[in-house]
Amino acid sequence: MTIRHSAHALLPLKIIATGTALPPQCITSAELDIRLHKPAGYVEKRSGIVHRFHATDDASHAELAAAALHDALGRHGLAPDSIDLLIFASVGSVQALPCSAVFVMKAARLRPGLAGFDINSSCVSFISAMQVAAGLLNAGTYRRIAIVSADLASRCLDWQHEESALIFGDGAACVIVECGDGTSGIAASLSETYPASSDLCEVRAGGTRCNPRTGMQDRDFLFHMQGKKLFRQASALIEGYLGRLLASAGLSLQEIATVAPHQASHLAMEHMRQRMNIAPDALVDIYRHRGNQVAASIPTALHEAVISGRFNPGQPVMLIGTAAGLTLAGMVLMP
Amino acid sequence: MTIRHSAHALLPLKIIATGTALPPQCITSAELDIRLHKPAGYVEKRSGIVHRFHATDDASHAELAAAALHDALGRHGLAPDSIDLLIFASVGSVQALPCSAVFVMKAARLRPGLAGFDINSSCVSFISAMQVAAGLLNAGTYRRIAIVSADLASRCLDWQHEESALIFGDGAACVIVECGDGTSGIAASLSETYPASSDLCEVRAGGTRCNPRTGMQDRDFLFHMQGKKLFRQASALIEGYLGRLLASAGLSLQEIATVAPHQASHLAMEHMRQRMNIAPDALVDIYRHRGNQVAASIPTALHEAVISGRFNPGQPVMLIGTAAGLTLAGMVLMP
Repeated sequence: MTIRHSAHALLPLKIIATGTALPPQCITSAELDIRLHKPAGYVEKRSGIVHRFHATDDASHAELAAAALHDALGRHGLAPDSIDLLIFASVGSVQALPCSAVFVMKAARLRPGLAGFDINSSCVSFISAMQVAAGLLNAGTYRRIAIVSADLASRCLDWQHEESALIFGDGAACVIVECGDGTSGIAASLSETYPASSDLCEVRAGGTRCNPRTGMQDRDFLFHMQGKKLFRQASALIEGYLGRLLASAGLSLQEIATVAPHQASHLAMEHMRQRMNIAPDALVDIYRHRGNQVAASIPTALHEAVISGRFNPGQPVMLIGTAAGLTLAGMVLMP
Repeated sequence: MTIRHSAHALLPLKIIATGTALPPQCITSAELDIRLHKPAGYVEKRSGIVHRFHATDDASHAELAAAALHDALGRHGLAPDSIDLLIFASVGSVQALPCSAVFVMKAARLRPGLAGFDINSSCVSFISAMQVAAGLLNAGTYRRIAIVSADLASRCLDWQHEESALIFGDGAACVIVECGDGTSGIAASLSETYPASSDLCEVRAGGTRCNPRTGMQDRDFLFHMQGKKLFRQASALIEGYLGRLLASAGLSLQEIATVAPHQASHLAMEHMRQRMNIAPDALVDIYRHRGNQVAASIPTALHEAVISGRFNPGQPVMLIGTAAGLTLAGMVLMP
């Protein structure tokens, strides 16, 4: 009864639609220079970003997610009622209870009675959700799944900490998948977590650790990152990790046509470019105009690959990212 | 390449171990009578609970989850390193970033490099996690998955609101699954969410809705429930839902040997007993000595079914629950 997703066989999965959404406020680095009392050009040089988008503090997280879902449905003429599972795959939740998928279904006016749940593996949540969706579709549990990633990093930026505050942008992306006919699918997927580094990138509030009963401060709600340490840890692991991912796909790096990485930072993108040693166009780089969109980053990059003609049958596409955790995750897709 | 999980075919899944953990503090209803200045017997009568367990405010959520995982491993002599995916399936998270699975891996001293993520569908998170695990195992993505549900409701009880404060208990449970040989598995699973009722049961803080940037109060961190409305909504939907779940399994209610329900409340358990019309022993009822353990409730009830000889080959077992959302979820397992 079981199918085995061996090293060189495809696990069937077909991407039938992609879409994105951005909040209306475009924040240029030039504006931030003024707001933060810096010389002209400082923020762009420091962050590598021309502009990013930030939601206002009263904007709805669920509505941004719903806009990405409707963008994907609308671009491909799909009926909202044709979705039979909604996976919300993000870092940030709307509130502690109920789960965020409920609020996205409501904001998107999806049919009552739909199934939905949240998946969270930090900035690589979308990769976990794609693994999960492929499993559920191949088991026949669902037939058409919408994965929506939406994050509002602006709600937890610490403006006293430039290294992180300058690099994040808000956004949402949606990818709709079916089982397909088996000609497209997942050639390999691999996720590895190294919890010894869990404090290198964190937001301490939002759960059982910091709340009114245990004691908390406003700063516990802010993003804390030890960027250099995190980068060093990730760099030490990535070589071995990449080898294992490629071996599992039965492919060499030269055979990967497109890489859609997590747009983590200027430094991370530059490292990816050097490490991958692939043609400039093969690396999806939207960092300068989006910043790091947390869990929405990888599906936004995948959408960019699709609309820019870099997601083509027979040409392997790699999703890859390092996330708080520390987690390394990647997936090789055959479009 | 795909297998279809038709109405009457089993999706292979084998439970190879179960375990639970409780915090050390047993809180009797008699103690609460005194603490809340009520007449003797008041809390037990109002809640239907003799005792429940509450963690102290400095106790670690991840350590409780890790204890349930080690209980499951230890009872069945399984090596921790044999797990290749950890799914944390709970309502409450440890903190906003990174995901909680990271902290459970760390607390449980699992091997670095393990895969993990969180799944949240409110109080029925465990049912979603079982669906997901079956998909991943049948796709061959993983071979042995540990699902851990752990919730500390005590961190968000509103002691001014008896209806909810008196019914919750903390706890954790773990179920370890493999694909198996196909003789055991999922005969049906069904999840339906009705988001119009999302505000009937909620904790508003913990995400993008209520935080220092958007404005928040201590009460936003507390559990809010409109119990009667929620019960009425759930009761109106459950008949139709149960019919759909059984039809999908190709079974009648009389053929279900054991029901392991979400131990939601005294009223909900009584309704389940009447509605199900099954032998008293066939309904797993641990509510009087646990209370409502949120997402840990269903896997704790399943563990109880296993250790009390009510999970036997060839005898269908139903997991079922209603959750904040409003979500109805259920699963028929063939042990």
